[in-house]
Amino acid sequence: MKTICVIGDGQLARMMAPAAAELGIQLRLLAGAKDSSAAQVIPAVTVGDYRQAADCLAAAEGADAVTFDHEHVPGPALQELVDAGHSVQPRPEALINAQDKLVQRRRLRELGAPVPAFAAIESVADVRAFHAEVDGAVCLKACRGGYDGKGVWFPADLAECEDLTRELLDAGTALMAERKVDLTRELSILVARRPSGEVRVWPITMSVQENGVCAEAIAPAPDLDADLAARAEQLGRDIATQLGVTGVLAVELFAFAGADGREDIAVNELAMRPHNTGHWTQDGSCTSQFEQHLRAVVDLPLGDPRPTAPVTVMANILGAAQDPELPMAQRVAEVAARFPEVKIHLYGKDHRPGRKIGHVNLSGTDVEATRRDARAAAKFLVTGSW
Amino acid sequence: MKTICVIGDGQLARMMAPAAAELGIQLRLLAGAKDSSAAQVIPAVTVGDYRQAADCLAAAEGADAVTFDHEHVPGPALQELVDAGHSVQPRPEALINAQDKLVQRRRLRELGAPVPAFAAIESVADVRAFHAEVDGAVCLKACRGGYDGKGVWFPADLAECEDLTRELLDAGTALMAERKVDLTRELSILVARRPSGEVRVWPITMSVQENGVCAEAIAPAPDLDADLAARAEQLGRDIATQLGVTGVLAVELFAFAGADGREDIAVNELAMRPHNTGHWTQDGSCTSQFEQHLRAVVDLPLGDPRPTAPVTVMANILGAAQDPELPMAQRVAEVAARFPEVKIHLYGKDHRPGRKIGHVNLSGTDVEATRRDARAAAKFLVTGSW
Repeated sequence: MKTICVIGDGQLARMMAPAAAELGIQLRLLAGAKDSSAAQVIPAVTVGDYRQAADCLAAAEGADAVTFDHEHVPGPALQELVDAGHSVQPRPEALINAQDKLVQRRRLRELGAPVPAFAAIESVADVRAFHAEVDGAVCLKACRGGYDGKGVWFPADLAECEDLTRELLDAGTALMAERKVDLTRELSILVARRPSGEVRVWPITMSVQENGVCAEAIAPAPDLDADLAARAEQLGRDIATQLGVTGVLAVELFAFAGADGREDIAVNELAMRPHNTGHWTQDGSCTSQFEQHLRAVVDLPLGDPRPTAPVTVMANILGAAQDPELPMAQRVAEVAARFPEVKIHLYGKDHRPGRKIGHVNLSGTDVEATRRDARAAAKFLVTGSW
Repeated sequence: MKTICVIGDGQLARMMAPAAAELGIQLRLLAGAKDSSAAQVIPAVTVGDYRQAADCLAAAEGADAVTFDHEHVPGPALQELVDAGHSVQPRPEALINAQDKLVQRRRLRELGAPVPAFAAIESVADVRAFHAEVDGAVCLKACRGGYDGKGVWFPADLAECEDLTRELLDAGTALMAERKVDLTRELSILVARRPSGEVRVWPITMSVQENGVCAEAIAPAPDLDADLAARAEQLGRDIATQLGVTGVLAVELFAFAGADGREDIAVNELAMRPHNTGHWTQDGSCTSQFEQHLRAVVDLPLGDPRPTAPVTVMANILGAAQDPELPMAQRVAEVAARFPEVKIHLYGKDHRPGRKIGHVNLSGTDVEATRRDARAAAKFLVTGSW
């Protein structure tokens, strides 16, 4: 069978390992440390720095494809991999749209995808003009490097907006601004595409963010109009195809009340790798996003993404203010005893407040009951109390 | 979280790795070779010989529990592990019932479990007497070491029976004989028990053997009378509890036409580890047998064994007469294209005729259609032709 090199050592790489073991695919990992989340469960590890082309090349040696668990490999390192003849999936010219928000916004607008009004911000004058254009509803974004609410700012007024812009530009941060969306909820399109063109889409997922971090995902998204769901799925297909994405693509969406009062959508972010809003597929779909990503990057036909239950809820296990005295093994035991049907996923990571250290999945028939139980289980796993 | 040492390097140990990675359980492996099926996917490997207590002790160092992917660790090595303070699961006094068929038969008869008539065979006179007792319906078995039809003989007549007995006893093989059952099909009870006593049972499974090797498993077993299913499940619970089994226990059953013409059952074999007839649980149950085994051996509350589909069929990928020219990756591609809903599991093993190199699982609603597709997929993966 095939060999795949994964650059990145977090939980997303870790959760590719079970899918690879089942499919008989060999993984090779470029990890920052031998005890990182993914390196704990993958035998073939090169310890190195993903920003160094030489380290990427060393890990990729002999692999049929190279893929990633994050978007942060610099363009020159990607190019060296391509130049050395590696099958880099997704390809750099697709991946740039997940690396640089301004490039992405321009490309999506070109494609006719719904995006909020935006502008490149290269001076205080730029942000002043944009502030006027959107009646003060400004969201400032670093073009690169943000995640989980980092690199995104919501200035309260023009003065704060100008100060922040000055400060960030002085620090050398490439900036853009976009119209702040008055969102009603967040949705996510999870899609996979392989190099030869096949595309598969999971049902549209709803996600709930807390403090800028995904806390919960519910699939299929409850109370979603069928026409809007179909439109979102088509949008996912179009973006994947037209950007030439390979592997899993997550299109995070803002949902808001449109002009006619009906729910409408705009694109928030793109991620070209398995995504937190797709973890439910591990236990709630015929094909998990991790298996699908591996199939896609070596151009195997994609698996069936149909859901296996009426509803599946994922709740993140986010490090609490402090690690409770009750050891994790006992917390797992209590959750397993109360909820024998909850699927617990832990990442082998130490506790840190707000850090994603695992998640639970729960399939059921009733959305609210399933959400309640999934969240109770996730909460107990970090706090040690019901 | 907990650390578990697994002694044995085959596909059963390999398939514990995905469940361990998800639950955050660390595995340590005692493997015969660094490139064995399980060692390919588990980083912490001690290379050694499971028959040597010193090697078992080296692998077990620091683990919260020690378990197995086969029954062949000798009693003295098991005892040394226990004496060194290790939590050996299942415990040697339970495991002996899966190691020695005569011990097992005596124990099951004591418990009132249905077993065919049997006798210890220590001489040709013994087998002659037993032959007369069962009207020539003799099955000879080596007390230890048999699997997949090996170590079991069906002599055609008394002369062959005597010759075989003489030959085997002369070679030092401990022997027993039992009445050959006129079986109508084979069933399997899959149950898990943890040290503190909790027991969970999956639906009764039907298995189809070819040349003494499991070719297919269907769960739940089709056309099984509800009373008989309930009786079989209770039998599984009783055996697990009364033998003090921990981890997964498979009770292979003969099904035959009882005196009243209705389907009846007798125990064929016991296995105290994940079992081929339970592979369907990976994709067809809320909790796979591999996850359940790991939970059980560290005394975590057991997961929900309910099925997630009306029927799930497992078909083994058994090495064909010769490996086809079409490489495995292309065979996988063709199967994935035709059956996007088939789950392919490969063991990282080289081809050898009749060798188990993988299996497929397929969930569906119609038993015959699901069987047909699962078997077609498995067949293509070894022959490269539809």
